[in-house]
Amino acid sequence: MQQLLDNITSIVDLTSQEAEKISEKFRTFFLKRKKDLLRGGDICKDIAFVSQGCVRSYTIDENGNEHVIQLAFENHWISDLYSFLSLEPSTLFIEAIEDSKLLLISNELLEQLNSEVPKMERFFRILIQRAYVSTLQRLEKSFSEPAAIRYKALIEKNPDLLQRVPLIYIASYLGITPESLSRIRKQRH
Amino acid sequence: MQQLLDNITSIVDLTSQEAEKISEKFRTFFLKRKKDLLRGGDICKDIAFVSQGCVRSYTIDENGNEHVIQLAFENHWISDLYSFLSLEPSTLFIEAIEDSKLLLISNELLEQLNSEVPKMERFFRILIQRAYVSTLQRLEKSFSEPAAIRYKALIEKNPDLLQRVPLIYIASYLGITPESLSRIRKQRH
Repeated sequence: MQQLLDNITSIVDLTSQEAEKISEKFRTFFLKRKKDLLRGGDICKDIAFVSQGCVRSYTIDENGNEHVIQLAFENHWISDLYSFLSLEPSTLFIEAIEDSKLLLISNELLEQLNSEVPKMERFFRILIQRAYVSTLQRLEKSFSEPAAIRYKALIEKNPDLLQRVPLIYIASYLGITPESLSRIRKQRH
Repeated sequence: MQQLLDNITSIVDLTSQEAEKISEKFRTFFLKRKKDLLRGGDICKDIAFVSQGCVRSYTIDENGNEHVIQLAFENHWISDLYSFLSLEPSTLFIEAIEDSKLLLISNELLEQLNSEVPKMERFFRILIQRAYVSTLQRLEKSFSEPAAIRYKALIEKNPDLLQRVPLIYIASYLGITPESLSRIRKQRH
């Protein structure tokens, strides 16, 4: 739980009472590799903080092909925010890539928490703001930067990505075929 | 200004004092067609609410090609949030597609406003949250849905898009060539 509190205090200061109230609202959840936290069609009831492990979200298109939307390592948050907020069925699947330890908070408890600790509203605003900005930049780069440059930047930002995430998921995250990714990787050696 | 207040009160309730404080912080700005509100390399100092007209943001890649990132019609907000928040130089250009009337608020006045009217923090959290969710969905769909389907959905959501936005920008927004967009439009007739 300290890891979660450290993540929150990197953005907002907390008193020990506030820290305690936050800790009470989250529950620990162990998710085995390949198991789903969320299945498309279900309502996303929790936001997850990744304490250990690695999790991905993906969508399945009408031809049955998977597309990786997000990769979340330790100290990152993952959810289908649209479904979580609107209570509409999710279009995303969330699955563990490694055995993972998650800290979950439900919509109901998050609302309680926001009113008990108003700073959490500020924390989530800033968290979502950063996620929004980085998603806009990813969209912008998917239009304007060659995949080889986006691959290089991804590896530099996540040096252990190749050890932890199958190439097929990395290719999908970049929006390219596994064959294109192989070609890019060969050119770099 | 009433239009701006209506946009805000669609998300949070306001007292008349709060409405007045908000109105004081925004300034009206007329932007002629083809003129820039923001140029890449400059720091984005304002968030803009589109009161009349239509505005786009775009990026220019290393080969000099433009890529449309956002289209904002009346009652929508536009900015380079990354630059606005971080005070780093923008990678985006923001330009009027039609003669437009904008309501602008600077970073400094927005901070003042957030402390004078704490509800505004909540308003912007929800606004950004929605923008984030819709950008994630757009990213997801750019991977998983054929351009023809994305074009159809865009037109349904913005029935006067074709009358107001040049086809070259619509193609760019969809991440396809103008030739592909022509083919898609012919198939539909």
